[in-house]
Amino acid sequence: MELPIALDRGSKQSLQAQLHEQIRRLILGARLKPGTPVPASRILASQLGVSRNTVVLAYERLEAEGYLQTRGAIGTYVNLELPENCLTARRPESVAASRMHGSARHRPIAFEGRAQTIVNDKRLACDFWLGRPDPRSFPLKAWRRLINRTLTTAGACLTEYRDPAGLIDLRKAIADHLGPTRGINVGPDQIVIVAGCQEGFNLTARLLLREGMSVAIENPAYQGAACLYESYRARLVPVGVDDNGLCVDALPDTGAALLYVTPSRQYPMGFTLPLERRLHLLDWARRTGTRIVEDDYDGDFRYQGSPITALMGLDSHGYVLHLGTFSRSLGAGLRLGYLVVPKHLVEATRQVKALLDNGHSWLEQAVLAEFIARGGYENHLRRIRQSYAERRNCLIDSLQRHFGDVTVSGTECGMHLAWHLPRHLPRAAELQAVAAEHGVGIYTLESGGACDLGGCAYAERTVLLGFSSLDERQIRDGIERIAAAIDVARTRTHEAIASTWSGAAAPARMPMAGGRVWMEGIRP
Amino acid sequence: MELPIALDRGSKQSLQAQLHEQIRRLILGARLKPGTPVPASRILASQLGVSRNTVVLAYERLEAEGYLQTRGAIGTYVNLELPENCLTARRPESVAASRMHGSARHRPIAFEGRAQTIVNDKRLACDFWLGRPDPRSFPLKAWRRLINRTLTTAGACLTEYRDPAGLIDLRKAIADHLGPTRGINVGPDQIVIVAGCQEGFNLTARLLLREGMSVAIENPAYQGAACLYESYRARLVPVGVDDNGLCVDALPDTGAALLYVTPSRQYPMGFTLPLERRLHLLDWARRTGTRIVEDDYDGDFRYQGSPITALMGLDSHGYVLHLGTFSRSLGAGLRLGYLVVPKHLVEATRQVKALLDNGHSWLEQAVLAEFIARGGYENHLRRIRQSYAERRNCLIDSLQRHFGDVTVSGTECGMHLAWHLPRHLPRAAELQAVAAEHGVGIYTLESGGACDLGGCAYAERTVLLGFSSLDERQIRDGIERIAAAIDVARTRTHEAIASTWSGAAAPARMPMAGGRVWMEGIRP
Repeated sequence: MELPIALDRGSKQSLQAQLHEQIRRLILGARLKPGTPVPASRILASQLGVSRNTVVLAYERLEAEGYLQTRGAIGTYVNLELPENCLTARRPESVAASRMHGSARHRPIAFEGRAQTIVNDKRLACDFWLGRPDPRSFPLKAWRRLINRTLTTAGACLTEYRDPAGLIDLRKAIADHLGPTRGINVGPDQIVIVAGCQEGFNLTARLLLREGMSVAIENPAYQGAACLYESYRARLVPVGVDDNGLCVDALPDTGAALLYVTPSRQYPMGFTLPLERRLHLLDWARRTGTRIVEDDYDGDFRYQGSPITALMGLDSHGYVLHLGTFSRSLGAGLRLGYLVVPKHLVEATRQVKALLDNGHSWLEQAVLAEFIARGGYENHLRRIRQSYAERRNCLIDSLQRHFGDVTVSGTECGMHLAWHLPRHLPRAAELQAVAAEHGVGIYTLESGGACDLGGCAYAERTVLLGFSSLDERQIRDGIERIAAAIDVARTRTHEAIASTWSGAAAPARMPMAGGRVWMEGIRP
Repeated sequence: MELPIALDRGSKQSLQAQLHEQIRRLILGARLKPGTPVPASRILASQLGVSRNTVVLAYERLEAEGYLQTRGAIGTYVNLELPENCLTARRPESVAASRMHGSARHRPIAFEGRAQTIVNDKRLACDFWLGRPDPRSFPLKAWRRLINRTLTTAGACLTEYRDPAGLIDLRKAIADHLGPTRGINVGPDQIVIVAGCQEGFNLTARLLLREGMSVAIENPAYQGAACLYESYRARLVPVGVDDNGLCVDALPDTGAALLYVTPSRQYPMGFTLPLERRLHLLDWARRTGTRIVEDDYDGDFRYQGSPITALMGLDSHGYVLHLGTFSRSLGAGLRLGYLVVPKHLVEATRQVKALLDNGHSWLEQAVLAEFIARGGYENHLRRIRQSYAERRNCLIDSLQRHFGDVTVSGTECGMHLAWHLPRHLPRAAELQAVAAEHGVGIYTLESGGACDLGGCAYAERTVLLGFSSLDERQIRDGIERIAAAIDVARTRTHEAIASTWSGAAAPARMPMAGGRVWMEGIRP
């Protein structure tokens, strides 16, 4: 008997594995029936032009798996103990497996969420994509040095499970960093290392939510948070945002399982929540028993004034959970962030983290701990803060140069700003399309990682511009291109524009160097 | 006015930060009322013996935060716009904050789970702790070389978000590894990189579960899985295990949202599910529409026979999700594993992973991809497989030498074995205590990362012995100490033992070199 086997010598799969797989399929497809002898290894090897050893090993494996059986003189045959009914039942499926695959009746999956927009694969020539540090700014030399040094003392750190809450040295370093920069005084035991803010949201959801509970959330909100809480089947209760951040008067009287808020710098608008509102917010939390998730995603970049005390630093009753990340100050490729919890939540948080993933990878935690403790992080922040401030200035200057008086918010800190489009310019989505045609990426709230949970006043006429990963030449060039693109569009479809853009009657775009700029945030 | 401020020059906090913090507390505690002028910076600096600049910067920060206000001639004073009622409302709390902290009324948190036992901080002198690779076996030199090489091409990999499903090179390398070693033929798109099996369980839970749904699970089961599914408020339906692994006849007729199973090597007993049961299991899955989570936690260590085709390799209808990890073959400190899903779940799985944590850290993914693709992983596996096989042999030999005929299971593969204690030895928990007194760590099911979900026949008389991280001398020494410990305990409390240990009348432990050993698993 010659078996219908065809080996592909160009395949990545070894000949032995191919042989094993094809015989297995013959048996499962009942083309080789139980009790049928298979060719002697020597014969099959000669048939296929392979070494005898290849066949022997494939047979041995099939035997170990129960497909074949060998008995002295009889030779090797398809196992009799393989129950015939199994094979019969499977025969029609196996034969028609490829066709039937799609038609198998699967239960609908339970998951109903949608994912956030954070990956931008199709970067344009000049892309004001948001929240990304300049890759050239990564402290690669120092990082490599620390990795090499850290690895020499690795010992069992690479092989063992450790405290799921994270490396104690890193948690200490973060606690030391949070005291002076955020006014948060906590011990390292209150800090849990997470894989960026997103895992932090998950931790808070697993800790505080059940299906059907309500989550108060600012509107517009960061997509990553909104999609996450929604995916746990929480009821989102949007709370409006104005030029001073979250409208604390609009918070639900009944409280919520948690409130998600970005007080240092509202995402995506960039407003900073003033002290008065912070205190009101904490009062509300206490009155309603609502826990607050404070997302401080880019608090390290404040260009004007000093750092603002975080909400958690003002909370003396343990209602605030504080989230920070190194995705913006160092890089999202590290997947490193931290969740700071009040003392009474320490143990439960650690358990949730253990269940989520048994803790974070060791090496980069150890390296980051050293980087912070030796002052490298502080220096790095100082350096990029300076550079980003210059880029921000360049962006504002370019906007003024091409569009005159511009209204922007979120300029005191962070890595992007929100440009509030005047009436005589197209709406955000249209402007985005026009700019993209000219190779410039600018973003609406929705395409820029935020979402409008209904009735957001800023949704239509706000464009988000990230400036941190572009140099000044690129920034100037990008804004100039947008201006030119608008001119082209205006010329090309003058009549159409007249009916679409309400501001067609407004003065033509006029380069001017002295335009004023209104910046939102804490004012003196 | 002199402010009641005391600076601690020994503190890690800067003087400026201390000053800021203390003034802030004075204002929030209403000890400095709105409108009250604060001392001129020169005067306060002189009072405290610090540079004037320190005071100026602290004031500037307080001003930025809205606590202080400066007006030309009047000087600096506590902000009037800070509403008096906020302060009044907060006064009693602030004063008594430290006392009241514990008494704040917090809602009970939603989380009700418990965490698994995977960290063993209190290692004994000779510890048969489970599932850990030998730290000395980690391929540190190759790893370091690959890290350094990989970092030179880092570019934006460290700073950008990437595909949440993981680095494509690593997914390709894993797909190529799974074909020949597990009989799983999938494309890299079907593979999602996870932070070890635990995150894999989470992914499956988020994908397939809602509160109250049922999860069929083998009993005894791996704690990490059982605790995880339970924490999602699923109803666990335990399915018994016998010497051939999961009792497929006992599967619930109605199916379940998912079935969790370890077919290659039942955790913790080590039984391998034979082909016949595998096929029955797949039939059941298809009949009931149940998805199967196949946890292949240490499938890379098979000492006898060839690798077994994974359940997913037998499934042609897309019911099996396959989980693997590098925690055992390389190290848990890497937090790297993979979930392989059928084609129709690719997109949803990627979304769930994005919501969980936006994907895994880049560097170690890139390094592992290279390590596998260049053959380093295969070599590493071959080396440690050989070394672990020797340790396994040494352990079995030592047990026979000291305890005569021993019944052990799970010896064909993996990193631990299960010793089924005979009647004349103490029960597992007692033996564990006796051994611990003599500095030897051995484990019951519960303390060894497994759990008895009710009525498990193996719970009382099974001891788990991990052999992979001990050398042969330690193994021999450890078993000898256990034997001696039993003798001591027997002598010390002879009468008590007589009533407690049912086997007190059995022959005294007798060293013998020729004891037989029964090994469970796939037999020829």
